[in-house]
Amino acid sequence: MKVLHTADWHLGKKLHGYDLLPDQAYILDQILKIAKAEAVDAIIIAGDLYDRSVPSEDSVRLLNQTLTDWNLKEKLPLLAISGNHDSATRLATGTPWFNQANFYLHTRLAEAFTPIDMGDTEFYLLPYFEPVDARIYFEDPELRTIKDAMPKVIQKIEDCFSPNKKHILVSHFFVAGSSKTDSETKIEVGGLDGINGALLENFDYVALGHLHGKDALKLPNARYSGSPLKYSLSEKDQPKGVWIVDTATNDFSFQTLTPLHEVCELQASFAELLQPEFYTNFKRDDYLSLLLEDRAVIPNLMNQLRQVYPRIIQVERANGFETSIESQLKKANIKEKSPIDLSEEFFTAVSQNELTPQQRKWIEAGMHEMLKKEAKADAS
Amino acid sequence: MKVLHTADWHLGKKLHGYDLLPDQAYILDQILKIAKAEAVDAIIIAGDLYDRSVPSEDSVRLLNQTLTDWNLKEKLPLLAISGNHDSATRLATGTPWFNQANFYLHTRLAEAFTPIDMGDTEFYLLPYFEPVDARIYFEDPELRTIKDAMPKVIQKIEDCFSPNKKHILVSHFFVAGSSKTDSETKIEVGGLDGINGALLENFDYVALGHLHGKDALKLPNARYSGSPLKYSLSEKDQPKGVWIVDTATNDFSFQTLTPLHEVCELQASFAELLQPEFYTNFKRDDYLSLLLEDRAVIPNLMNQLRQVYPRIIQVERANGFETSIESQLKKANIKEKSPIDLSEEFFTAVSQNELTPQQRKWIEAGMHEMLKKEAKADAS
Repeated sequence: MKVLHTADWHLGKKLHGYDLLPDQAYILDQILKIAKAEAVDAIIIAGDLYDRSVPSEDSVRLLNQTLTDWNLKEKLPLLAISGNHDSATRLATGTPWFNQANFYLHTRLAEAFTPIDMGDTEFYLLPYFEPVDARIYFEDPELRTIKDAMPKVIQKIEDCFSPNKKHILVSHFFVAGSSKTDSETKIEVGGLDGINGALLENFDYVALGHLHGKDALKLPNARYSGSPLKYSLSEKDQPKGVWIVDTATNDFSFQTLTPLHEVCELQASFAELLQPEFYTNFKRDDYLSLLLEDRAVIPNLMNQLRQVYPRIIQVERANGFETSIESQLKKANIKEKSPIDLSEEFFTAVSQNELTPQQRKWIEAGMHEMLKKEAKADAS
Repeated sequence: MKVLHTADWHLGKKLHGYDLLPDQAYILDQILKIAKAEAVDAIIIAGDLYDRSVPSEDSVRLLNQTLTDWNLKEKLPLLAISGNHDSATRLATGTPWFNQANFYLHTRLAEAFTPIDMGDTEFYLLPYFEPVDARIYFEDPELRTIKDAMPKVIQKIEDCFSPNKKHILVSHFFVAGSSKTDSETKIEVGGLDGINGALLENFDYVALGHLHGKDALKLPNARYSGSPLKYSLSEKDQPKGVWIVDTATNDFSFQTLTPLHEVCELQASFAELLQPEFYTNFKRDDYLSLLLEDRAVIPNLMNQLRQVYPRIIQVERANGFETSIESQLKKANIKEKSPIDLSEEFFTAVSQNELTPQQRKWIEAGMHEMLKKEAKADAS
């Protein structure tokens, strides 16, 4: 059978204050299109459906609408778990009714040990859990970390294996050695250092959630799907998409998604950025991190930039800021004046008097002597 | 068919700071017992399932568990709507899957016009809505209040009536002339003064939510179920329970509920309240409003009372407080002292000296003269 693997939707997430719900609705629609084009038999959602344990009403509306469309209208079986960003209790609302429609959403550790039998495969849906959940479930006070608990969890799952089936684990945690980005909340409650990948070797495929890059982990049989959108600037070069897993061949391939607005970085001078010849070459309404080549302080900078670029997520300086002395000298136009003019300006500023012609002559003579001495010193 | 009508659960509500969830779990269990004993064919829940639009996780857990048990385990059809305390969007989570199990939970005005056909009856589930919802639904900008909208809503519902069926309306609003208590949030958005009861005359029964007293409304065909618990002191004398409606005969009878802890008022003196002979006659762990007969300030009052009564919701004075002058006089034991002793105390306080024997004699003589004059004046 063919399964689509996605995760880390983080519905309701904001990117530097920008509401991402329209981007999220757009990308979920694209995931559905891929599922239909690939004629998948089920969709895996490996946790973090919401960005917050108490999502906004708009986020609730989007998730409810999406799951209703996919499962009840499109008749797609769904295999989902809660992640560390979800409230397991809140996300569990309605779940006992979902199963009749082949929608399985597991939110408690205990549910991981009831496989979902579908086609040639058994799916084990292991939601994100806390060490205390494992201590209670296994009645073992020694389970202080997820790392302590995971061998017991995996062993208990393997004890449920039907021998003639494929076995897919759906889970949401950090596998040791994976590479992180800026937008994942660290789950290190209880001192979790990361689960040893070797623990997962008996599964035909492990559909992971939590890390936002699809290449965060290189195991032969396990993948993070990554988030469907770039949720931080550090993800700007990550391809985003979903995995299509073929359980007959154990192959998986990545299908990329095209966002409504990209997250990217743009380097240019302030003047260039405001020139139509420059900005008509870009999708100006992307989420942009601007790298200004200017070093000067630019008054009213953000307002001017936002008139052209409506979704600026940060502005940094490619060459740093002008120093305070540089800035003062420039302000006074100092490099374009002669040493005598500068002396005269200084005299006037301090004494509130003009130089007399005699005083000016003395300065000229002194300056002349000084330059002669300097020239001599340079020559020696 | 036989239907049980309840409403206004307000899960998560606190009574003067006390968490009512254990009381609510207890009373929901009792409602289920009545439903089973009466062998009802369905349960109506007429809004305000939660007390807040964002309920606590514990409240979510209790509602999820209750609805799962009643509908999936006990196979009871459920007919529910959202009330003004519920977030319609949040409460809608899962609803598209519920219908397969004969669980109907309507949260949008548009859903009111799809009757639920069950046994001999059509049920119209009209959730609480705002005037703006009616303006959008009917595309009529003139609908400024619920009162404006309701004739259109009821007309549209009546247009859906199947002639050979009974018709029950489930709704959550204020019917004009009903009597209120302290624990209902006023829904007067848009100038709602209350819906005219005559509008409801074509229904065989109207199962209402919103007001907390079962006797708030006297119409031949409509009832508020009231809340299953007393949610304010003003409800202390209200019987709490559920209506059992027989659609064949159009009869309805009230079945009372017995709470885990009552809400009641107790009048006594402070000394009595702390005497075992007194308090062993009461359920000390009820939610109590204490009416103290004492007028004096009693130091450390609440701590002393709480050692005997763990759920005090308020303490008031039956006879008011002692005035400040009364209190000072009492403190100085002033009524038990002779005028001469009081004069001596005053002299000592002011001069920091004792009275000499001669001074004391002068005072005695002066006091004697004064009393003689007073006696003469009284006699004349």
